[in-house]
Amino acid sequence: MALSYKAPLRDIRFLTNEVFNYPEHYKNLKSGENADPETVDMMLDSIADFASDVLMPLYQSGDAEGCHFDNGNVTTPKGFKEAYNMFVEAGYQGMSYPEEFGGLGMPMSLNLIKTEMVATSNWAFSMYPGLSLGCMNTIMEYGSKEQKDTYMPKLVEGTWGGTMCLTEPQCGTDLGQVKTRAVPNDDGTYNITGTKIFISAGEHDLTENIIHIVLARLPNAPEGTKGISLFIVPKFLVTDNGEVGERNPVTCGSIEHKMGIKASATAVLNFDNAKGFLIGEPHKGLKAMFTFMNTARIGTAIQGLAHTELAFQNSLPYAKERRSMRVLSGKKEPEQVADAIIHHADVARMLLIQKAFSEGGRSMIYHAARYADKMTEATHAGDHEEAEKLDEKLGFYTPILKGFLTECGIEASKHAIQVFGGHGYIKEWGMEQIARDARISTLYEGTTGVQALDLLGRKVLLQSKGKVVLDYTANIMKWCTEYALDKEMRKFVWALTKYCAEWNTLTARIMLAARKDRDIVSAASDDYLMYSGYVMMAYHWARMASVAYDKLKNGGKETKEFYQAKIKTAEFYFEKILPRASGLSESMLAPTESMTLDLDSFNFLD
Amino acid sequence: MALSYKAPLRDIRFLTNEVFNYPEHYKNLKSGENADPETVDMMLDSIADFASDVLMPLYQSGDAEGCHFDNGNVTTPKGFKEAYNMFVEAGYQGMSYPEEFGGLGMPMSLNLIKTEMVATSNWAFSMYPGLSLGCMNTIMEYGSKEQKDTYMPKLVEGTWGGTMCLTEPQCGTDLGQVKTRAVPNDDGTYNITGTKIFISAGEHDLTENIIHIVLARLPNAPEGTKGISLFIVPKFLVTDNGEVGERNPVTCGSIEHKMGIKASATAVLNFDNAKGFLIGEPHKGLKAMFTFMNTARIGTAIQGLAHTELAFQNSLPYAKERRSMRVLSGKKEPEQVADAIIHHADVARMLLIQKAFSEGGRSMIYHAARYADKMTEATHAGDHEEAEKLDEKLGFYTPILKGFLTECGIEASKHAIQVFGGHGYIKEWGMEQIARDARISTLYEGTTGVQALDLLGRKVLLQSKGKVVLDYTANIMKWCTEYALDKEMRKFVWALTKYCAEWNTLTARIMLAARKDRDIVSAASDDYLMYSGYVMMAYHWARMASVAYDKLKNGGKETKEFYQAKIKTAEFYFEKILPRASGLSESMLAPTESMTLDLDSFNFLD
Repeated sequence: MALSYKAPLRDIRFLTNEVFNYPEHYKNLKSGENADPETVDMMLDSIADFASDVLMPLYQSGDAEGCHFDNGNVTTPKGFKEAYNMFVEAGYQGMSYPEEFGGLGMPMSLNLIKTEMVATSNWAFSMYPGLSLGCMNTIMEYGSKEQKDTYMPKLVEGTWGGTMCLTEPQCGTDLGQVKTRAVPNDDGTYNITGTKIFISAGEHDLTENIIHIVLARLPNAPEGTKGISLFIVPKFLVTDNGEVGERNPVTCGSIEHKMGIKASATAVLNFDNAKGFLIGEPHKGLKAMFTFMNTARIGTAIQGLAHTELAFQNSLPYAKERRSMRVLSGKKEPEQVADAIIHHADVARMLLIQKAFSEGGRSMIYHAARYADKMTEATHAGDHEEAEKLDEKLGFYTPILKGFLTECGIEASKHAIQVFGGHGYIKEWGMEQIARDARISTLYEGTTGVQALDLLGRKVLLQSKGKVVLDYTANIMKWCTEYALDKEMRKFVWALTKYCAEWNTLTARIMLAARKDRDIVSAASDDYLMYSGYVMMAYHWARMASVAYDKLKNGGKETKEFYQAKIKTAEFYFEKILPRASGLSESMLAPTESMTLDLDSFNFLD
Repeated sequence: MALSYKAPLRDIRFLTNEVFNYPEHYKNLKSGENADPETVDMMLDSIADFASDVLMPLYQSGDAEGCHFDNGNVTTPKGFKEAYNMFVEAGYQGMSYPEEFGGLGMPMSLNLIKTEMVATSNWAFSMYPGLSLGCMNTIMEYGSKEQKDTYMPKLVEGTWGGTMCLTEPQCGTDLGQVKTRAVPNDDGTYNITGTKIFISAGEHDLTENIIHIVLARLPNAPEGTKGISLFIVPKFLVTDNGEVGERNPVTCGSIEHKMGIKASATAVLNFDNAKGFLIGEPHKGLKAMFTFMNTARIGTAIQGLAHTELAFQNSLPYAKERRSMRVLSGKKEPEQVADAIIHHADVARMLLIQKAFSEGGRSMIYHAARYADKMTEATHAGDHEEAEKLDEKLGFYTPILKGFLTECGIEASKHAIQVFGGHGYIKEWGMEQIARDARISTLYEGTTGVQALDLLGRKVLLQSKGKVVLDYTANIMKWCTEYALDKEMRKFVWALTKYCAEWNTLTARIMLAARKDRDIVSAASDDYLMYSGYVMMAYHWARMASVAYDKLKNGGKETKEFYQAKIKTAEFYFEKILPRASGLSESMLAPTESMTLDLDSFNFLD
């Protein structure tokens, strides 16, 4: 059975126009000038078609075929090159990059919506253009004029690709352990030597050139994270007239055999005195990376949303068609041999969890995307100070979005398989691929554990002593007071009020406990992250419900069913999903005493 | 990296000897005569070696190679046939089958321990001999003397294999929809025609013959579940002197391409007027199946345990070796570039969840195995009445064991991947295979949803009006009173008391709510199943802790560390895992109102 995808444009427009009022927000953006509603609508329609018609048909075939490695060269699966060329020709790659480099100069939030559609229809494909964004953002914020002029036009066009080369065999999260060396040459360039692993889009046949951003150490660099610099290392050096020149000795040693996203090439790259160009200040590479890590993490959060949506869109029709047993409350389809399984409450539950995660996750991302708009403008202008300020704002959301929504994606794809029963385990039905592809999302761009510690340890405790949660919940509370006497909204705002208070209490209690037991911050972090995610998503569902009630009352032209479904799903979220936070609030406060086993006492196999 | 497995014999003996006192229990069994402690010890040691040395090395290669299908014939991966021959020669297949058919006549609980070791080292392999058990049990309970004499010796020996053919393309759970027909011949045999899918071990090269147990309908059989009969359909008909004879027209049309357990052949079987032999009474096939479904479900519960243990055994050493960042409370390994990740509380947490699930799950299975012993004796004696009585006892445990422990297996393999970070996603490290293999366990032998409805709808509400939970928790409470004044055990028994009371309250509240809202039973069932699992496992951890405290006080010869680790893990379970039940108790009572969306309102894509 071929999986299918149709962009949920109705839901996308509900969020952009009815919930978050993007058109108004765009008026305050420089890039907003290029995003008048008609252009945006046309753009979304065209990307939606591209995703359904071009990318979706390559999703399962790309997985079955995988990437090919032959003596340093990587070939992407059949159809990928043609699809990528169409992507380039449509100008999708440079959508949110400056017009001076050939881009469309539109807000980053539109790029994120584009990414959602491209990613949902074919995540592995989306990684090739996706990785370029990190490279482009680095060059835009830290590159010299010459570097921008050299690399940006082709990157924006998409005829060249880009990567981020961070991980090495001995270190991923702990980048202080990076060993790759950069030795200065007399001409101001550097010779880069070392091995980088897990480089997505590190080698492939889609673009003429690949521009690697590489973390490396200068001679006598301070140890640890304070001695890392950034370098531009192109696969092919660029000639004076901006064309592809001499091959640089950065070679692909192999590509990984992975559980999923098999159509995305994950390269081992060997740098053997490859010529590199310093970008930004020496030794300040890691700090530079962090300023746009937020946007990258929203990109991975989108993967959570993407797999949730794809799982949902494809398990829903099966649940309507497959017939098994009779519903407890009585036959629903008496003329049939059995009832469609969607009528069984347990199956409806699994579908509604997917629906709630998908629409709730979309709301969370589209909300954060507005901050990403401003952040990107500062980044592209090279305004480090403004970028850092906005980073703080966005920095609270990103670990929650990335950490929580990717976990939701894994859960959603699990439910989708369950809906299919044994058929969910069989390749031809496609559901198991979604689960395999989704599985990477909690690992790269910082594991869930890393997001959790970033949220609780860094953003909440260290940087703000809990104030960031206090501020965020104060906003929710303020919103709640508007609905305190509203009969319909009451059920939502009461629950929200309770959880907002508890969220702050939990933060304070962990802060207090950490004075005596530092490790409790690590021990509690995963529970805290998930708790934060559930409460944040609850707020989004309440907001969406309030808009839906409003629209129903003030009778728009739209069909009622859409808004009624929103309200029901909000109720479902509050009744069946949000209670998980209760369990988390209990377990997160457990002392670490029971976790301090001797290393030899974890098991006894001899 | 090659995965490794060492049978946790210390833990196995802790349970069999120190917690559940198998030797005493065996004294009350007929089959117990053959299970004196020395024989048992020898047997366990030998199977442990076989699992580690022979089966484990075939685990990853079997997945990489998969099964081969060629024109109706199936070849298992390299090494499987040799391993299977060793398995047969060692007499492992007939361990718990009567001596009169060449078995060792030992208790079924020992067979389950054998299964655990074989399954953990190579689940796909274990399915070939495992499926035979269902076939052998059917023949033992319902077969005529002639049928037993014809099939049992070779099946017990293992030179013939067996299957259970239930599922058809249009139905899995809802076996009332079975269409396969059985037309009587003049000689008392039947001609069987139809298609069966998802037949594990349905075709392969390991045995000389395969004996299929097939669900089919006689002419004019009543519709639905009351018109299904059981037939023996051998791949090769058996000659009068008991040897392999003429090929029967039951052919393998294809094997499935699956997410995992790729070394296990999952066959589509086409029966084209294949000769079959009625076993048991006409039209009573489904009822017959149910009496030993419990043992089969314990077999699948073991898969949950198996993948948990394998994930744990292999993520633990990685967490001790991989170094990243410094622990919040201060350097643990100052001489190293960074601390081993096991020192980070969040990583220790992920390992301890696996440990708690593995040892707790083992305890739950080894407890139920004692009921399986008596049940099997009744089954093998063909004593339907006694078998049905014991079935009721075991019937409460099996949906919890199968449903809950397989979910634990999926969670454990997820944590193991997280511990590995990005490497967890790469095939060569082996962790992703465990996750793929584990994924089937919540689908076959009844999905988690089916187990959940069986537990709540059938066993708890319909059959006992909640009494089965009342009885079970009364036992726990009785046990708790012994420790009410025990300073060390108090923390466990207090929590248990609370949850036991709540479990009954929840049951009563659902029962009450179901009077007006029948579908709430389905809507609540998954939460109820998981809640039951968490509380049941808590009781097992409390019991294990009490034995450990006792051993520490009364100073056995054993090392202290083992018992101290048990106590710490029990504490961890109660503090970090059991609180999940709080969230479940809240969500399970939600009314179904929010789940009754119009079928067209689940999404709006047009």
